[in-house]
Amino acid sequence: MQPQYEQLKQRFQHIIDLDLINSLLNWDQSTYMPPGGSEARGRQSALVGVLRHQKLTDETTGDLIDQLLPWAAEQPAGSPEAAFVREAKRTFDQAVRIPPDLIERAYAHFSHAYQVWTTARPENDFKAVQPELEETLAISRAMAECFPEREHIADPLIDLQDPGMKAREIQRIFAELRAELVPLVEAICDQPAVDDSFLHRSYPIDRQRAFGEQIITAYGYDFNRGRQDLTHHPFMTKFSLGDVRITTRFDEHNFGDGLFSTLHESGHAMYEQGINPAFEASPLGIGTSSGVHESQSRLWENVVGRSLPFWKHYYPQAQALFPDQLGDVALLDFYKAINKVARSLIRVDADEVTYNLHVMIRFDLELDLLEGKLAVKDLAEAWHARYQQDLGLRAPDDRNGVLQDVHWYAGPIGGVFQGYTLGNILCGLFYSQAVAAHPKIPTEISQGRFEMLRDWMQKNIYQYGAQYTTAELVQRTTGGELTIQPYVTYLKQKYGQIYQL
Amino acid sequence: MQPQYEQLKQRFQHIIDLDLINSLLNWDQSTYMPPGGSEARGRQSALVGVLRHQKLTDETTGDLIDQLLPWAAEQPAGSPEAAFVREAKRTFDQAVRIPPDLIERAYAHFSHAYQVWTTARPENDFKAVQPELEETLAISRAMAECFPEREHIADPLIDLQDPGMKAREIQRIFAELRAELVPLVEAICDQPAVDDSFLHRSYPIDRQRAFGEQIITAYGYDFNRGRQDLTHHPFMTKFSLGDVRITTRFDEHNFGDGLFSTLHESGHAMYEQGINPAFEASPLGIGTSSGVHESQSRLWENVVGRSLPFWKHYYPQAQALFPDQLGDVALLDFYKAINKVARSLIRVDADEVTYNLHVMIRFDLELDLLEGKLAVKDLAEAWHARYQQDLGLRAPDDRNGVLQDVHWYAGPIGGVFQGYTLGNILCGLFYSQAVAAHPKIPTEISQGRFEMLRDWMQKNIYQYGAQYTTAELVQRTTGGELTIQPYVTYLKQKYGQIYQL
Repeated sequence: MQPQYEQLKQRFQHIIDLDLINSLLNWDQSTYMPPGGSEARGRQSALVGVLRHQKLTDETTGDLIDQLLPWAAEQPAGSPEAAFVREAKRTFDQAVRIPPDLIERAYAHFSHAYQVWTTARPENDFKAVQPELEETLAISRAMAECFPEREHIADPLIDLQDPGMKAREIQRIFAELRAELVPLVEAICDQPAVDDSFLHRSYPIDRQRAFGEQIITAYGYDFNRGRQDLTHHPFMTKFSLGDVRITTRFDEHNFGDGLFSTLHESGHAMYEQGINPAFEASPLGIGTSSGVHESQSRLWENVVGRSLPFWKHYYPQAQALFPDQLGDVALLDFYKAINKVARSLIRVDADEVTYNLHVMIRFDLELDLLEGKLAVKDLAEAWHARYQQDLGLRAPDDRNGVLQDVHWYAGPIGGVFQGYTLGNILCGLFYSQAVAAHPKIPTEISQGRFEMLRDWMQKNIYQYGAQYTTAELVQRTTGGELTIQPYVTYLKQKYGQIYQL
Repeated sequence: MQPQYEQLKQRFQHIIDLDLINSLLNWDQSTYMPPGGSEARGRQSALVGVLRHQKLTDETTGDLIDQLLPWAAEQPAGSPEAAFVREAKRTFDQAVRIPPDLIERAYAHFSHAYQVWTTARPENDFKAVQPELEETLAISRAMAECFPEREHIADPLIDLQDPGMKAREIQRIFAELRAELVPLVEAICDQPAVDDSFLHRSYPIDRQRAFGEQIITAYGYDFNRGRQDLTHHPFMTKFSLGDVRITTRFDEHNFGDGLFSTLHESGHAMYEQGINPAFEASPLGIGTSSGVHESQSRLWENVVGRSLPFWKHYYPQAQALFPDQLGDVALLDFYKAINKVARSLIRVDADEVTYNLHVMIRFDLELDLLEGKLAVKDLAEAWHARYQQDLGLRAPDDRNGVLQDVHWYAGPIGGVFQGYTLGNILCGLFYSQAVAAHPKIPTEISQGRFEMLRDWMQKNIYQYGAQYTTAELVQRTTGGELTIQPYVTYLKQKYGQIYQL
């Protein structure tokens, strides 16, 4: 082994550990931190970010990478060693281009903007966040402009989340998907509306929580290496491969809100918990892209957690836990209710079919903002206009409009939303491969067992972390390139059946 | 203002922020971290410690301090500027004198020794910790020897916790106090034993918690700048002056355990919450010594929280909250029970009067070990002999003897225990001054109001953080030097009344 390789690994261990420490600062901020802690937390988060950036962009890091490139080229393609140097170089190149004062400005601002949003959202006060968003956009553009070779101004930001993906390619894929979704949504919305009123009866929160935690334990989420806490906006985070946490929220009058959040985040978490332990605190010790990550959260939330086989097993348990609320509801009515398709205002509450339309609106608005076609002051109205156009609805206020998602208030504008729909597409693709390899997966699921599916994901996706890129994972599992077909087939079959199209 | 002063402040902001970040890593480890997180957490905590040490001992830090010394000498005595340079120099000297390999040896060893102790204690196995303690003693002596100008080998270790205090002075003070305590304990123990069995009835934990949190809110602990969580060993910690947290534990069958822990930690926390916000993330933004810190925890736990005026107000509430447990107990019987004095084996469970005898045993043994008068192999037996001599009791085993306290198994031997008794003495002193200034304080307390007392502490102690040393605070508040008299008077009055001496 090259001595430089060991030195680079040691150096990246510190860099990644600083990232993971920052994740703890953020987790605490979102779960337990009292209001008085916010100013210092922003400052401390910025400090850790700067130290990380200094370590990463230190000349020594670049020298070590340069020295290792010829050696890495001789390693077997796809080997951890070659992948390590590739990811180290990508991370270094990304960081070395962004000046430290911009990083510091970004960290401090995002933490502040998040605090402003947490009060502006309930108060429906877009004006309060407007200056924050203007600074966020300025920072986002400044970050993108550090990469003048880019094709599109969003590409460097997209590359941070979905390495190798480009705005133009995503636009092409999204257009293709939209052409399939729009008629499907129309056909469904022509059918009589499904009754889901019983999902809004009173469901005691402690039981909701226990039920969700029981299911994700069966999925394979390891509570010895994680935990679930409460927050405003559910997320998964990680402080090491041995400490991968999820957060959720519960609404007493919404059966699905907390449960499907828990299932969603458990998918993210199982991906991280499943990574090869040898990749701990290295650039390979992380899910390879936002898209692949979402493929797993959507898999366990929707493809498994909203499937008929799943509820064949779990519905009797749900009825036993909530006899007054679900005792009079038949399985098929429940199944239809949790899969009810409707044009709606809130992305995270949207059904599987319309969900991608919500994402496309945000993706397009991000591009418009970055391209300078849309000013932040007009964003709230542009949001309403696009909802009217794409979903035929206008939110009564900004709380249910542009203020609904945390993302733009806690990080850059750009590169944030495409991963959700790429994730759905990848999910359809990976799931179809898993079922092709193990046709009994749906039968297993109907018995409350998930080993076959999880093991396929573990073997083909999870263990590799960032060893393989998204495109390589697709190539290895399907022998081809990214295609929307399995996902579209999945949607048409499932919803064709439910709505008898 | 000197430009070097601003540079030094900026530099110390980073140093202190790294300390505060490490506090969050430790808080999370003690409250919420799943078992799988432990290995990485140790690695990450060490990384933050190393970064902090590098920043602190960097040549630039020393140069800036040297350049500022003449300027600082011209600042008004006791001014924040003079105090900043004094504390910066003390912190720098402490860090730079101890060679990095000794620091590394110490951290690695303490962490290992702690692990050994966690199993040796329940197994009552002093032999298992003996080699660990021998290395701890060697490290402690080596650390002290980095300061050859010391009078006594314990002085540099004491200075880490109680700056300016010296072993010989503490011995003199402790001898004086012992001469008062021994006859008082004897007189009390000649009286009939107090019945406190009702404190061990079943007290639902959620109510215990609510009761304690209601009281510390009335004390003035600010939950907007703090919170309380559960842990094995209660502690106070701080991530900024706006985020000062406490932890506690509850025992359903012990009314006092959780409540008095909460009151105790709230005293530490109110001290930190009260520090001048201008001292945020500076060496002045922290309680000035272990002794002054304990003076505040013991004040709000004992002098207030175990006083008759306090319970005149709170006992009816306690009875309303726990009618089955306390409904048949008269106020005076309750008051006697929570102040029951008895010779016992465990320091943390000891009453106000005998507590200091426990501390003195440990302090004397620390000095004997450091001076080479006592070998580690004879420590367990020396412990028993001292308990026999001072408290008339011999523990049945080492688990209730030398293995009971974590301190020697998680840090150096020396400088650890004196702060507890200095704190009691300082508490008596500060409280008597507050009451002299505001004789209505006990009346206010009997109405469940604490503003007068807290404001006095805020004005005379809290706001200054480390701006004034312990000796300076004593001088400013009393016009003289540290004296045990107010504390002894307090003990004699309170316990003379309870035990009708």
